[in-house]
Amino acid sequence: MARASTLKRREENESEFGRIVAFSDGVFSIAITLLVLNLGIEKGLTEGQIDDALWNLREDFFAYAISFAVIGRFWLVHHRFFAEVEAFDGRLIGLNLLYLGWIVLIPFSSEVLGEYGGKTPAVVLYSVNLAIVVLLGLLMGAHARRRGLTKIDDRALRESQIRSVYIAGIFLLSIPLAFLAPSVAPYFWLALFVDPSSRLAGRGSSRAGP
Amino acid sequence: MARASTLKRREENESEFGRIVAFSDGVFSIAITLLVLNLGIEKGLTEGQIDDALWNLREDFFAYAISFAVIGRFWLVHHRFFAEVEAFDGRLIGLNLLYLGWIVLIPFSSEVLGEYGGKTPAVVLYSVNLAIVVLLGLLMGAHARRRGLTKIDDRALRESQIRSVYIAGIFLLSIPLAFLAPSVAPYFWLALFVDPSSRLAGRGSSRAGP
Amino acid sequence: MARASTLKRREENESEFGRIVAFSDGVFSIAITLLVLNLGIEKGLTEGQIDDALWNLREDFFAYAISFAVIGRFWLVHHRFFAEVEAFDGRLIGLNLLYLGWIVLIPFSSEVLGEYGGKTPAVVLYSVNLAIVVLLGLLMGAHARRRGLTKIDDRALRESQIRSVYIAGIFLLSIPLAFLAPSVAPYFWLALFVDPSSRLAGRGSSRAGP
Amino acid sequence: MARASTLKRREENESEFGRIVAFSDGVFSIAITLLVLNLGIEKGLTEGQIDDALWNLREDFFAYAISFAVIGRFWLVHHRFFAEVEAFDGRLIGLNLLYLGWIVLIPFSSEVLGEYGGKTPAVVLYSVNLAIVVLLGLLMGAHARRRGLTKIDDRALRESQIRSVYIAGIFLLSIPLAFLAPSVAPYFWLALFVDPSSRLAGRGSSRAGP
Repeated sequence: MARASTLKRREENESEFGRIVAFSDGVFSIAITLLVLNLGIEKGLTEGQIDDALWNLREDFFAYAISFAVIGRFWLVHHRFFAEVEAFDGRLIGLNLLYLGWIVLIPFSSEVLGEYGGKTPAVVLYSVNLAIVVLLGLLMGAHARRRGLTKIDDRALRESQIRSVYIAGIFLLSIPLAFLAPSVAPYFWLALFVDPSSRLAGRGSSRAGP
Repeated sequence: MARASTLKRREENESEFGRIVAFSDGVFSIAITLLVLNLGIEKGLTEGQIDDALWNLREDFFAYAISFAVIGRFWLVHHRFFAEVEAFDGRLIGLNLLYLGWIVLIPFSSEVLGEYGGKTPAVVLYSVNLAIVVLLGLLMGAHARRRGLTKIDDRALRESQIRSVYIAGIFLLSIPLAFLAPSVAPYFWLALFVDPSSRLAGRGSSRAGP
Repeated sequence: MARASTLKRREENESEFGRIVAFSDGVFSIAITLLVLNLGIEKGLTEGQIDDALWNLREDFFAYAISFAVIGRFWLVHHRFFAEVEAFDGRLIGLNLLYLGWIVLIPFSSEVLGEYGGKTPAVVLYSVNLAIVVLLGLLMGAHARRRGLTKIDDRALRESQIRSVYIAGIFLLSIPLAFLAPSVAPYFWLALFVDPSSRLAGRGSSRAGP
Repeated sequence: MARASTLKRREENESEFGRIVAFSDGVFSIAITLLVLNLGIEKGLTEGQIDDALWNLREDFFAYAISFAVIGRFWLVHHRFFAEVEAFDGRLIGLNLLYLGWIVLIPFSSEVLGEYGGKTPAVVLYSVNLAIVVLLGLLMGAHARRRGLTKIDDRALRESQIRSVYIAGIFLLSIPLAFLAPSVAPYFWLALFVDPSSRLAGRGSSRAGP
């Protein structure tokens, strides 16, 4: 039993731990693949109209690309986090489910974004969705750290926190931007493709020495 | 061969057992992720209309949240049950398939609930669907127990039964409520987020105490 | 490399073999879960209309139930077959892909059946789809047997062949029935829930001795 | 941590490596199964209209068959490639995500192809999508080779490269063909079912000796 208060060691519950990870991977891989359902084309178009229809999908393609990158990156962070987890309790499983519940919403937020990319509510919805994912990830990390569920070292923890705060910051900053210049905000997210963590954490690690 | 009457030990059939669990996890993770397809937005709205459209989705979001929590919780129960399973026969596999057949219906019942949250048939459909899932789970547990397929101890069994009966009770009670006050019934389900099992079973266990 | 002519032992390629099985399980679990997308309800109905709409879905529910049972049963057969596989070659992987290609069509054939259950073309389409799955399964089994890829014993082989021929027979027989009495044909498939293999093979086995 | 510059041995990180492969398999199996959603039938047809509707789906069935074969083949190549991978770094994971991002687009390109099979933009879109997948696969292979992440031998590498260049060649050649004779181009892809790699590589290997 993995109730909130009971701690289970990973090595003694490898198959149970494996199922949590497999379930999470399943949800991630389905959510990322369902993004393609936001792309579609009408029936009965002429050849010239097909060109137009594909061209009109450019914002949907942009939303697809950014959401694929975002879910892919969240999967990587989740993957790295669970690689270091050595024990789990009911709260970690619960937080993980809550986290996945917001991951699964991304295809919907992405659909709204693809449809209404330049509009304030679409940008706000998307930003709020992703910021919540990042904050739940931080919460999960903090819980694991506090309860001693993870063997993550200080350097990796710092790297991971910097990365999370950086991503959350981008999305939270894009909310006011969505009111001022909604058509610019999504391009602001391209900053996601810059990864500041290795450089910053690397500097920290060189100070700390091996 | 895992026919109804043949018993297979888990440790001698680890890869076959692993496939049953993996298949179940796959079905759970896909069903939970398909919930997002119940959320959608029309094309060609103005900025003010987007706000309205998102606001009109509030019942769909509620249905999404409750169904995500419900499937997640069923997955947890399933996960804990199979963690204790030490052998399987054809009937267990068959019952598991039947159980999954009702899990997969949840995204549909949830769609109807999101669309018609305050209407009697939607609430009844949803309640019946979930009550059947719980009852099949109890049946699966009883079969495993009777045939000695599980190493579950008395305390964990009691905890699991209390939890199942509690959940089934909520849904069965909400059926008459759906006829009297259909718009109230779904909020009654919030009682699902209270978990009585650990306290009750804990009391039992302290009496039994080793 | 697993080209058509190269044989790979399972125990030396456990992770490669595991991926084939995991991929197949993934396809099975997604195909079986996508069946729920064939169920849906229109927006903006009154309470009485919801009852009608759900009642009008009864053929879709029937198609859902029969297809869930059918895919679940195919998964079981596939699962048992691969549990006995000890080596694989490129042709087995290719046949498996072809087999999965027809499994994935079932949600479509099932949609047509749910929509037009009493009509000849719907019944024919469904029967042809399932008969091809069964025949490809037999082909896969025959290839594995001929190339010595499986450790399956004679009794289990016979049991599996009887089961396959029985299922294929039901679907092939239902094709002429679809022309004579299309609305009866689907009920004929309920014969699928009778499993003749254990009794027949059991008789065979008692003759053969232990 | 698997940053771009850090190399992780597979045997020391089996569970982390396993998750990358499992996630990829998940994406492949979902993408291949979503192809069925491109097939559908309207409601409320008469019996004769059902025949017509199914007959009108012939281009969609063709697109389904070719896309199933194509994704299945890519999965095989991916599967063989990762079977030989002995270490991974952040760049390999990143390239793999990018590769999967284009795999997931195939159901969309396939939908457009099924709808507008004889039209230039549909053929170009499909060809470009698949050519990019092949080129990213080559890039991934080249990176793994350069960084010593794979134990692949020269013969297998040559076989894999010949296969990739052959597939990419077919799709790149079909782009000009799409402008000249768009209705012919898809049939040109049937050349995919011929596998030149084993013969050509076999000749190379006999020259090189065992």
